Amino acid sequence: MIEIPARRGKAARLAAGQSVRVVNTYGSQVVDTWAFVRDDMREFMSMEHTRIFISRLIPKIGDPLVTNHRRPILTLTADTSGGIHDTLVAACDRWRYELLGCVGYHDNCTDNLAAGLAELGLAPPETPAPLNLFMNIPVLDGNRIDALPPISTPGSHVTLRAELDCVVAFSACPQDMVPVNGANMTPTAAHFEILG
Amino acid sequence: MIEIPARRGKAARLAAGQSVRVVNTYGSQVVDTWAFVRDDMREFMSMEHTRIFISRLIPKIGDPLVTNHRRPILTLTADTSGGIHDTLVAACDRWRYELLGCVGYHDNCTDNLAAGLAELGLAPPETPAPLNLFMNIPVLDGNRIDALPPISTPGSHVTLRAELDCVVAFSACPQDMVPVNGANMTPTAAHFEILG
Repeated sequence: MIEIPARRGKAARLAAGQSVRVVNTYGSQVVDTWAFVRDDMREFMSMEHTRIFISRLIPKIGDPLVTNHRRPILTLTADTSGGIHDTLVAACDRWRYELLGCVGYHDNCTDNLAAGLAELGLAPPETPAPLNLFMNIPVLDGNRIDALPPISTPGSHVTLRAELDCVVAFSACPQDMVPVNGANMTPTAAHFEILG
Repeated sequence: MIEIPARRGKAARLAAGQSVRVVNTYGSQVVDTWAFVRDDMREFMSMEHTRIFISRLIPKIGDPLVTNHRRPILTLTADTSGGIHDTLVAACDRWRYELLGCVGYHDNCTDNLAAGLAELGLAPPETPAPLNLFMNIPVLDGNRIDALPPISTPGSHVTLRAELDCVVAFSACPQDMVPVNGANMTPTAAHFEILG
């Protein structure tokens, strides 16, 4: 099991056919997730392409996640978390925390993506909208969105199968100013393991 | 009034304080819309940042549209179209039409963005998810999405005020294989005018 340290990013290479199991170790940690095609990172998992491909906001077991070239790059093959994830909301960034009133630097998922990839000698071509695993952003009346604590439980997990050789990146979201990582607003570590 | 020709893109520079009125001339034409900061086009209107900024999927009159640095770049100041627009769905691209069974080249909003900007000597740093004016993508049960004809009417329009010096780009969506541009699937021209 590989740790995604609290408030930090981590990336790994996957060959097509391998899977990654992402574990919500302590139960209420959002894990921002990205995937880039290994040979050309300008092709990457895209939420705005995936939503229309699967005709839903939240992928369910069996659904593909597609790239900005509309090719399946990951498939959601298992999910014990309750099935609530988010595709609507940008990765947090320094501007998000400035708007929330934070003075000085705050860890953020955008920088974590870059740092996680940098450990592999890679750089993101841009910051795609992430698949926010375990994040609970309900759409209330077909329009209004809210930001609630996750419904996932300790040890619950999601499995994603690589359909292309790719690089996956994760950020254990450092959001501690609104309750997206649980009502006590304390970011934790999460873990992943590569299968197959 | 400046024409956005059927199936084509068009761009224009706006100074902060100016507005652009986008007219759905024939009533059922989707207009993909982008805005880039003039001094640094890597900062641009971002749907994934806007949704969480305004806590809704669809902007209403008075709502700002923010950049990937979370700064308001446009404000929706008037809307006679019925208020149905889309922020969920990627611009169409050649892969979209390939998946729909099109053989050979099909006009698409992604290429139209690039072509519209090229007329001004500019290039997009990437293809941001667009604000799809007049596009009717309902969220049916907090999750499922559909693609329906617009509810807008001939001559109905939207006004967007520039909050920053910016370049706006439009594409009269060439989608003629699913009914997002009306039940008869016939893309038309649209128009815009710069105010103030």
